[in-house]
Amino acid sequence: MNTASPDAYSELSAHVRELAELASCGSLLGWDMETLMPAGGMAHRARQIAALTTLVHERRTSPEFGGMLDRAAESTEAGTKEAANVREMKREFDRRTKLPVDLVREISETTSLSRNAWREAREKGDFALFRPWLEKVVALKRREADAIGFEDEAYDALLDEYEPHMTTRDVSELLHPLRAGLADLLGRILDASDKPDGSILERVYPVGAQAEFGRTGAAGIGFQFDNGRLDVTTHPFCSTIGPGDTRITTRYTERFFSESYFGTLHEAGHGVYEQGLDQDAFGLPSGQAASMAVHESQSRLWENLVGRSHGYWRHNFAAAQAKFPEALGDVGIDDFYRALNEVKPSFIRVEADEVTYNLHVFLRFELERAMLDGDLAVADLPAAWNETFERDFRIKPQNDSLGCLQDIHWSLGSLGYFPTYSLGNLYASQLFARAGEELGDLDAMFAAGEFTPLRKWLQEKIYDHGGRYPPRELIERATGKAPSADALLAHLETKYGAVYRL
Amino acid sequence: MNTASPDAYSELSAHVRELAELASCGSLLGWDMETLMPAGGMAHRARQIAALTTLVHERRTSPEFGGMLDRAAESTEAGTKEAANVREMKREFDRRTKLPVDLVREISETTSLSRNAWREAREKGDFALFRPWLEKVVALKRREADAIGFEDEAYDALLDEYEPHMTTRDVSELLHPLRAGLADLLGRILDASDKPDGSILERVYPVGAQAEFGRTGAAGIGFQFDNGRLDVTTHPFCSTIGPGDTRITTRYTERFFSESYFGTLHEAGHGVYEQGLDQDAFGLPSGQAASMAVHESQSRLWENLVGRSHGYWRHNFAAAQAKFPEALGDVGIDDFYRALNEVKPSFIRVEADEVTYNLHVFLRFELERAMLDGDLAVADLPAAWNETFERDFRIKPQNDSLGCLQDIHWSLGSLGYFPTYSLGNLYASQLFARAGEELGDLDAMFAAGEFTPLRKWLQEKIYDHGGRYPPRELIERATGKAPSADALLAHLETKYGAVYRL
Repeated sequence: MNTASPDAYSELSAHVRELAELASCGSLLGWDMETLMPAGGMAHRARQIAALTTLVHERRTSPEFGGMLDRAAESTEAGTKEAANVREMKREFDRRTKLPVDLVREISETTSLSRNAWREAREKGDFALFRPWLEKVVALKRREADAIGFEDEAYDALLDEYEPHMTTRDVSELLHPLRAGLADLLGRILDASDKPDGSILERVYPVGAQAEFGRTGAAGIGFQFDNGRLDVTTHPFCSTIGPGDTRITTRYTERFFSESYFGTLHEAGHGVYEQGLDQDAFGLPSGQAASMAVHESQSRLWENLVGRSHGYWRHNFAAAQAKFPEALGDVGIDDFYRALNEVKPSFIRVEADEVTYNLHVFLRFELERAMLDGDLAVADLPAAWNETFERDFRIKPQNDSLGCLQDIHWSLGSLGYFPTYSLGNLYASQLFARAGEELGDLDAMFAAGEFTPLRKWLQEKIYDHGGRYPPRELIERATGKAPSADALLAHLETKYGAVYRL
Repeated sequence: MNTASPDAYSELSAHVRELAELASCGSLLGWDMETLMPAGGMAHRARQIAALTTLVHERRTSPEFGGMLDRAAESTEAGTKEAANVREMKREFDRRTKLPVDLVREISETTSLSRNAWREAREKGDFALFRPWLEKVVALKRREADAIGFEDEAYDALLDEYEPHMTTRDVSELLHPLRAGLADLLGRILDASDKPDGSILERVYPVGAQAEFGRTGAAGIGFQFDNGRLDVTTHPFCSTIGPGDTRITTRYTERFFSESYFGTLHEAGHGVYEQGLDQDAFGLPSGQAASMAVHESQSRLWENLVGRSHGYWRHNFAAAQAKFPEALGDVGIDDFYRALNEVKPSFIRVEADEVTYNLHVFLRFELERAMLDGDLAVADLPAAWNETFERDFRIKPQNDSLGCLQDIHWSLGSLGYFPTYSLGNLYASQLFARAGEELGDLDAMFAAGEFTPLRKWLQEKIYDHGGRYPPRELIERATGKAPSADALLAHLETKYGAVYRL
């Protein structure tokens, strides 16, 4: 039986687009709050965001919207882009409507307060201040998982919010071999005798010159400044206000080149993806990123696989020397390249290198999964953290601010988010390897300043499809292989074998 | 009969506040569009604004809102602030609901197009390109006036949008004597033999130094940068995003000191008013400016009556010399003061001095009133403009870009707006004169850097009341006199008698 009008899909699209337009006002409110808003505007901004969020949530969970989705589902043909859009919107609608309003409010109120408690706890290095809040958050997220439902374990239900169509088992099967390979490689690197001199990057790099050089770098890999901006914030991010308006941010430290430059390339990588999405499908899944991990694959690909490659610096090093003559005048390209790729176990995830980064993530994945299942009591988190950390990094945090208090995620209730960072790295390497097979010597292209072939390849394989396919399927379609840790491990073995002369 | 619940007013206030919070997202969309938005974001921004405007308009004209207003009207006591709030909201509701939806849409669509036609016509100096659009706009505004209704003449209905509780006859009675007095004063000034040397202000004033000096000036008169910002735009404005967040803009010309400095003081004057409004009454009339003219009275008061006073520069001139040593090193304070107050008939209203400014406004008031009543055909506008201009200024525009095509207002359908500029000047002088009577020698206070007494006086007399009283009543309460042109004419006679040594 097909009672749907032939316009059911058009009606749905127009409705969703208008809703997205309203919701996107919130993107600007958020961007402005982080970049330019005067301090006095905070209370009003919170009210603006709450009013808009409530309005959009009501419309996105209304029975009318549910009815539109059902009618459109009946009128679209299986296997088409339209059907995929309806499927994904229905999935999000079901998720949203499964959550009792009271639970949503309780989570929202609790995480607002727990974030403040976390900030104070981190400043003071006092886990006891955060512990009762984290206990509440974990209990609420467990209730959320129960409300949404799951097959194998509660973590599945939370993961699904960030990485749709992916189970905890899938993630575990991908990350376990990655961890093993990384631990082995890290051991050999730490034992290596010929190490890079990272102090080159801690000379004086004037902030004004960094800003200009970073902007040129972002434009070089294809970030369109006619359709975007680059500003300064404490915590860098990428935010799309709407078609033609994607904004990235960075921060500058005079005595550290990498933070801003690779931060900028990272956000520009997110931005290039956003700018490459189907602008006419704004608000529809086919005009949105496929998942958090696929998004992260693009930022990490441009930051690490392009920006930290030898070819990239054959193209850019002379300009870097001209821009920073005092810091780089006496440095050769190979020493600079090796410095950029120094591997050094450290306590803080966001400062980690390509090799140790995913070990940081794995540790969080293990611990948050155990907390959610009740296998790890929140009270035991600091000890468990430190023990696992020492196992993987051979160093031990002196306090919890350098340990289990360092990330904001848990205070916000974002359990299930961390694995997407590693999945992103894994997808990035797999895509990069396949692009190399199809396009030829990418490193030589970068050396010639040619970044367009790679971007066009990604446009066709990833950006054009938006959220049409489940992430795993998207990666498999693009690379001919199911996702695995192989490409990432192979890349790291080759690269760091050379950098550390193993 | 009183069927209203005792909470009818609270219910209304909460509803209005949430609506204002939603509407204020549009203020940020507008501010960002003018200041920072990348060019590519324009189409989406227009859609965001349209979606939000539609939503807010629907709610502000809904029968539910009308019902709330009626219930609240029954439950508030005459003469209270609450009753005034309900009265003013009811007035706006009635105005909005009187306009047929089709007419609103037609005006909106036509003025979008007519603005583009106006831009092209002004660029090319070709009135014929704009004429058919202005004819449509005038006809639509006439229909708007008819829909709203009026007692004496159609112009009343349009004026009421900008200057509530004010009739065309009121305006005419205030502006006719002003025009006569100005024409007489201008004649004597033009015949004066001892003239200021305005070229001092066209020396080199580096933009960076102007930005710093302007910011200090704005802070000096009381604009709070913790609760606001100052940015650069082509067309300066002041916009409040919400409590604690009022943003002003300016523009810089290296070889013209006055444009940016007095532009900044002007917008800071608007900003000081906005920052002084009752922040807890956000969205309610009592937390809003009383009218466009009262708003303009504050910008002009701080720009002209403070910023262009001799005392102000006794306080600030040494700093100006230190900031602009090349331009001002060899200039004395009296020559500088006279230069700031040079009177020079020019074609462009926004560049006009204190004396000629209101003659520009009067001419527009006469012409738009005549067009609306059908006494002046749009086709005859250029000739009528040029003839009136020559009568008042003794010079004649060489083309319509310097004449009837210079302002954007008519292309937007903003007939009835112009008089508020002159009413603002008139109110400013009357308030300033009264403040002087109560506080003592203001010029001496400015020379000592004391701007707080004046600001506190305005806080108490104007800002604290928001839109509680009709503008005329507000001015009369503050000054003890009904509004008239007397104070403005007296101020100009005294000041320019001295500047031109008449």
